[in-house]
Amino acid sequence: MALFIIPTPISENIKKTIPEEVIKRMHSIKYFIVERARTARRYIKASGYQSKIEDLVFFELDKRDTQNIPDEYLKPALDGYDIGLMSEAGMPGIADPGALVVSKAHELGIEVKPLTGPSSISLALAASGLNGQNFTFDGYLPVKTPELKKKLQFIEKDILSRKTTHIFIETPYRNNRIIETILNSLNGKIKLCIASEITGENEFIQTKTIYQWKKTKAPDLHKKTCIFLLGK
Amino acid sequence: MALFIIPTPISENIKKTIPEEVIKRMHSIKYFIVERARTARRYIKASGYQSKIEDLVFFELDKRDTQNIPDEYLKPALDGYDIGLMSEAGMPGIADPGALVVSKAHELGIEVKPLTGPSSISLALAASGLNGQNFTFDGYLPVKTPELKKKLQFIEKDILSRKTTHIFIETPYRNNRIIETILNSLNGKIKLCIASEITGENEFIQTKTIYQWKKTKAPDLHKKTCIFLLGK
Repeated sequence: MALFIIPTPISENIKKTIPEEVIKRMHSIKYFIVERARTARRYIKASGYQSKIEDLVFFELDKRDTQNIPDEYLKPALDGYDIGLMSEAGMPGIADPGALVVSKAHELGIEVKPLTGPSSISLALAASGLNGQNFTFDGYLPVKTPELKKKLQFIEKDILSRKTTHIFIETPYRNNRIIETILNSLNGKIKLCIASEITGENEFIQTKTIYQWKKTKAPDLHKKTCIFLLGK
Repeated sequence: MALFIIPTPISENIKKTIPEEVIKRMHSIKYFIVERARTARRYIKASGYQSKIEDLVFFELDKRDTQNIPDEYLKPALDGYDIGLMSEAGMPGIADPGALVVSKAHELGIEVKPLTGPSSISLALAASGLNGQNFTFDGYLPVKTPELKKKLQFIEKDILSRKTTHIFIETPYRNNRIIETILNSLNGKIKLCIASEITGENEFIQTKTIYQWKKTKAPDLHKKTCIFLLGK
């Protein structure tokens, strides 16, 4: 049977971002590979699961997401049962653990079926108005200032020469610092989109040129979940 | 009021990939900016819309997606009405028209709200098992063989040095040709994921090393909608 990749809400209620059939499919599965069993159990319960949660089997992902996926995790699929893969929020495997389980499933010849749900990277990109015909997700940028400035210079050059979009994230307590560095080091014509608390009640998504951001003063994003996009 | 980015099904039934609240939100909107009014009307009808379709207003996007978004398209938002942006399939603005409308909305200070739905790039990436911590969507690769080989060499180097994932698409009638070129020119250890007809009944997603693909013979993908991913 198959490994289903099951997205979970980012910070919103279930019906806002999880399709009806995704919930139904999740309710049909007995074996789960998850980041944390406690959160997964709570989520399945909240989604209207009618049977006994105690009968479900949860395997937890190694936090370091190393190469060691125990054989037993994917064995149910080889024995004829579907398996669900879930991360703490959003789409497993995208800026989130899970890819190694999927990789191992392919190696074992297990069918992999991705289900639709919220991915903050896609949502931010679509809402930014920046070029979505080619783009790069850089993950976390370097922490140290010299390396960060070097990376930003590379991004600036890439944007100006290819009109591509760069997307990246930052540890929430460093958000204000990275915005300051961006505003102080990049070409004023480049656009910066700040997307914070996507799908949430306090969702904030605004795209302006660096030049305009400098004049308007960026919002205080300390400790908020953010995605940043740079482009033209 | 806001510009809502409304995703539509790729090739599957609505409840499989469109959350309940996205449909409800769409039903509350009167003004739409769409790729084709005919398809949009048909989709809204099929989604269970109870009021008169004739009362809805559709503005069509210029097929070339040039800079000319007529002022009237976004005027309803300035006058206090929500607007819905829809493409023919998937997420507007991502490998699809729509970004220029969103960009103009930001310039006019209109709030932009992205709604959740299927994005074939995210689904393919999550299902590939390849690195989702950093990745690049390259859009279409060059058509001419020398430029294509040069681009593939660049991608190969990028994968081997940074373990990044490259995602790209091809005109459906050239799918078999690009796979042949990939199999004949890249390092055998690099992994190729072929994702075809994502979310559809004949969905096919498999990741193997170039070396393994050469031994197994790739499926016939002529004229099928595909996404390709290369990584490690």
